[in-house]
Amino acid sequence: MFYHEIRFDINYDPENLRWNGWGSEGHEWQHEAHIPALKKLLIKELKAPEGELPETPSVSIEDLNISASKFGDKEVKELGGIVGKDGVSVERRMRILHSAGQSYYDVVRLRTNQLKAYTDGVVFPKKEAQLAKLFTWCAKNKVALIPYGGGSSVVGGLEVHKASGQRAVLTANLTRMNELLELDEFSRIARFQPGIYGPQIEKTLNERGFTLGHFPQSFEYSTLGGWVAARSGGQQSNRYGKIEEMITAVKVATPAGVIETLRVPAEAAGPDWNQVIAGSEGLLGIITEVTVKIHRLPEGRRYFGVLFPSFRNGANFVREVSNEGEGYDLSMVRLSDAEETRMYSLLSEVTKKKTLLRPIKKAVQESVLRAAGQGAGRCVVIAGMDGEVGRMNRQEIRVRKAIRKHGGFYAGESVGKNWIKGRFNMPFLRNHVLDFGVGVDTLETSTTYANVEELHSEVLKALEAVTPHIVAFCHMSHSYHEGSCLYFSFMFLMDTKDPIGQWRKLKKAASDVLVRLGATISHHHGVGADHVPWYHKQNAGAAIGGLQAMKAAVDPAGILNPGKVFDGKP
Amino acid sequence: MFYHEIRFDINYDPENLRWNGWGSEGHEWQHEAHIPALKKLLIKELKAPEGELPETPSVSIEDLNISASKFGDKEVKELGGIVGKDGVSVERRMRILHSAGQSYYDVVRLRTNQLKAYTDGVVFPKKEAQLAKLFTWCAKNKVALIPYGGGSSVVGGLEVHKASGQRAVLTANLTRMNELLELDEFSRIARFQPGIYGPQIEKTLNERGFTLGHFPQSFEYSTLGGWVAARSGGQQSNRYGKIEEMITAVKVATPAGVIETLRVPAEAAGPDWNQVIAGSEGLLGIITEVTVKIHRLPEGRRYFGVLFPSFRNGANFVREVSNEGEGYDLSMVRLSDAEETRMYSLLSEVTKKKTLLRPIKKAVQESVLRAAGQGAGRCVVIAGMDGEVGRMNRQEIRVRKAIRKHGGFYAGESVGKNWIKGRFNMPFLRNHVLDFGVGVDTLETSTTYANVEELHSEVLKALEAVTPHIVAFCHMSHSYHEGSCLYFSFMFLMDTKDPIGQWRKLKKAASDVLVRLGATISHHHGVGADHVPWYHKQNAGAAIGGLQAMKAAVDPAGILNPGKVFDGKP
Repeated sequence: MFYHEIRFDINYDPENLRWNGWGSEGHEWQHEAHIPALKKLLIKELKAPEGELPETPSVSIEDLNISASKFGDKEVKELGGIVGKDGVSVERRMRILHSAGQSYYDVVRLRTNQLKAYTDGVVFPKKEAQLAKLFTWCAKNKVALIPYGGGSSVVGGLEVHKASGQRAVLTANLTRMNELLELDEFSRIARFQPGIYGPQIEKTLNERGFTLGHFPQSFEYSTLGGWVAARSGGQQSNRYGKIEEMITAVKVATPAGVIETLRVPAEAAGPDWNQVIAGSEGLLGIITEVTVKIHRLPEGRRYFGVLFPSFRNGANFVREVSNEGEGYDLSMVRLSDAEETRMYSLLSEVTKKKTLLRPIKKAVQESVLRAAGQGAGRCVVIAGMDGEVGRMNRQEIRVRKAIRKHGGFYAGESVGKNWIKGRFNMPFLRNHVLDFGVGVDTLETSTTYANVEELHSEVLKALEAVTPHIVAFCHMSHSYHEGSCLYFSFMFLMDTKDPIGQWRKLKKAASDVLVRLGATISHHHGVGADHVPWYHKQNAGAAIGGLQAMKAAVDPAGILNPGKVFDGKP
Repeated sequence: MFYHEIRFDINYDPENLRWNGWGSEGHEWQHEAHIPALKKLLIKELKAPEGELPETPSVSIEDLNISASKFGDKEVKELGGIVGKDGVSVERRMRILHSAGQSYYDVVRLRTNQLKAYTDGVVFPKKEAQLAKLFTWCAKNKVALIPYGGGSSVVGGLEVHKASGQRAVLTANLTRMNELLELDEFSRIARFQPGIYGPQIEKTLNERGFTLGHFPQSFEYSTLGGWVAARSGGQQSNRYGKIEEMITAVKVATPAGVIETLRVPAEAAGPDWNQVIAGSEGLLGIITEVTVKIHRLPEGRRYFGVLFPSFRNGANFVREVSNEGEGYDLSMVRLSDAEETRMYSLLSEVTKKKTLLRPIKKAVQESVLRAAGQGAGRCVVIAGMDGEVGRMNRQEIRVRKAIRKHGGFYAGESVGKNWIKGRFNMPFLRNHVLDFGVGVDTLETSTTYANVEELHSEVLKALEAVTPHIVAFCHMSHSYHEGSCLYFSFMFLMDTKDPIGQWRKLKKAASDVLVRLGATISHHHGVGADHVPWYHKQNAGAAIGGLQAMKAAVDPAGILNPGKVFDGKP
């Protein structure tokens, strides 16, 4: 069995990957024909002045101002001596591809030719032993080294920074270290190299009857090592946990030597290095192996939609199935607020065929929903179970009871099936809207249940205060015993004169609220360069000092991903 | 509702706590009348030469060689200025009580007057602000500071060590910081001070309808802060997790300032400080607050016994209910090996009334078991569920099916009820046997399922190679997705001439096997001083270096619990 929605045939050739947008050429959000309707929708929703959106095409790759690589023939030869001749590149396109991630901030800077710093070269190590040699070479040559997995960071984790005194930057692309090293069926664990992409992991495991169960939205273009380094969270984290909970052991190459944790399920032997490496974002070392828990492929999946009359009703349902009762065991429960429910409904209209009957169908649907108590403030939940069919039947009885208790309306499995079908597609939407002056970004945080409502409204208020030409919305997902992730998305009319200044204002507005309300600056994207000011506010003093000292011990020359997370200057 | 087996009335007055054994005066393993039968059993099992056990009474507290405190009136006055006059003691008994934990090694050293170092004084801080002042005072006066919770360390965590250049040692007893600070029923979390004992926590929570669900065997005499510092594991960890999984947030006073983690369910903001503090054993700071997940008191509990014809059968059952199927949700599953099954059965005979019918009853029981396929190698499982009654009914159907699948024999709930009744009692047994030349110690580790059998037999073999006068056995408990804890117990004829040398041999024999087979040096007791050599072997190089650098940053004067864990010299 394989998950039908996974594309196992993605071409990761750098020539084929987009340099200024999500994914590889040929993969789109929707058919070209739907774009005009999308545009029309956004004109209305963003209250575009004079009913028009500006054209904001990207510069072409040839137009980018990119200074010459600091690496000449000598460096290329030396690096080739370490990783092999075909393992080093100072080629222009390769450098561009490795100088930014996938945040709005990164992509807009590329598209407007405002990215200031480019990496000087890229290496593709194949073996752990090569990393030790690269560390030595970088320290000797005063070169910063940025570990690179799928390149999907949305928090500036790949931004090109040098520490003081460093003269160049090298990026280590780890996707040639992408093997399954060992599978222990009896103990249900698998040991992988770090550079393996999501679909490659699932293919390898599905063939043997297993799954990792980690499906972040970036799944198609991100890697295991990157997930661990940035504490990724997958869509089914309610069942399988966040990536840091899936780790049994890690092996990490640091300039001071290898750190390898024991292959044991739990320990009381000092601080937990697995949980230090998870979230270290390449500052302490390069992850070379990850041993993860694996699971039997579920016998079935059952995903369905539910409507609740208000965000509060929905949130109480989420809380109940996550911490109150016993035996709900949902793999996922994802509550959109009213605005996200409305926007997703409008977006799905964009892609539907216009027929004579469609408006009538919609009107009937609407009146049925209103009769069922689901008015204008209604919020959709997509929830799902993965497992044995008999067990899901029993679960469903309990879940339906909880739905009724909180005033919900069970909306059937077709909603869930559609969600599964498009689960990795949303990031492609941005590739289109950036062409016509619409910005789109997301941010995610987490808090306790008691604080969900306040945080939800305060973040939205802060974003909406930056510009009236914005649609901002939110969903709760990744719910836990004591709280939940809040994932905010926002689309806005781009300030074409200063898109970067505008983005900074939005980022600051939302992040200041997170700090004020004690919510984390990131639940599953990481800190990177973008979140440094707020991370430092939340970890001021001894915490930052302790981590910096640890870094100085394992990376004495300070070559590893300088300027990020706890190494950054707030 | 309250847990009926918890003694909520324990008198923790230092005058009432045993200085050379477990627990407080008046609490015993069993009635005095059972001791002769126990002795008889051990004579046989340990093959005591000439059928006799030596008398090995403890020295009396008055006989201990304890040098004068380094603290004179000046120091006592200064410390009193920080923690209040009634918060400082250099009194002899108080110093003795705070100079060792509860390991066999510690207790034997006390009983034989071989403990070399005693703390110079004890402070009882009441407020976090006092800790900062204590840090300054200790740094200025070159004094080591040992944080002390319940004093139940069995790995030398409280051993009195000085760093080079230090002239005295102060112990900070935290049991006066024992308040519930906040309870958020909606988010199901509670914030406590660190020095609250197990029964105090449950009383506080039970009164409000909640439980923490953390029940280590040391429960009655250990504290929340100690649990976190040493990564404690409770008997119901299958349901509630180990203590490090119960943490939502911690607050820690370090000499470099306070480290406080956010009250959020999950984060992607740098390494996880909760998981650095958990296991830091007082080396990085003193925990001042812990926010923990709490749960509704279970509607019911259902604990039962199962017999399996072999350890392998039992281990396969444990593995299945922990990682293979779905919906078993046992709170506990604890498999004794054949030797432990046999010994526990003999120990329970010791305490049973001898009647004319008893031998007949035993014989009938035995033949029934043999008929059911449970021969001499049979292994008992004690398993349990906590939760809604309806749910437990459904669970039980599945569990019974798994029992049959692995050749098990369901032995009923009375076994489980007895287990619950005596769950915190076993540590009291040692108080008796040490008087008649019998040593007893335990060690615990964890490994993946694939390695359980080898580790089990190799550790036992290593222990038995040290002396023929030993009974060593093991249980699997705290089982996880990929593996399990193995908990070894051993009773042995004490080498009365050199009990400490003998203990060192046993410790080394077993610990060397753990390292050789990649099992952790501790699953839930910690590293302390005793495990330092093996901890350093398993974390050599960059890992130790990184933690030492972190310590130097947050504790620049090196006052906090020197010589332990990563600060220790291997």
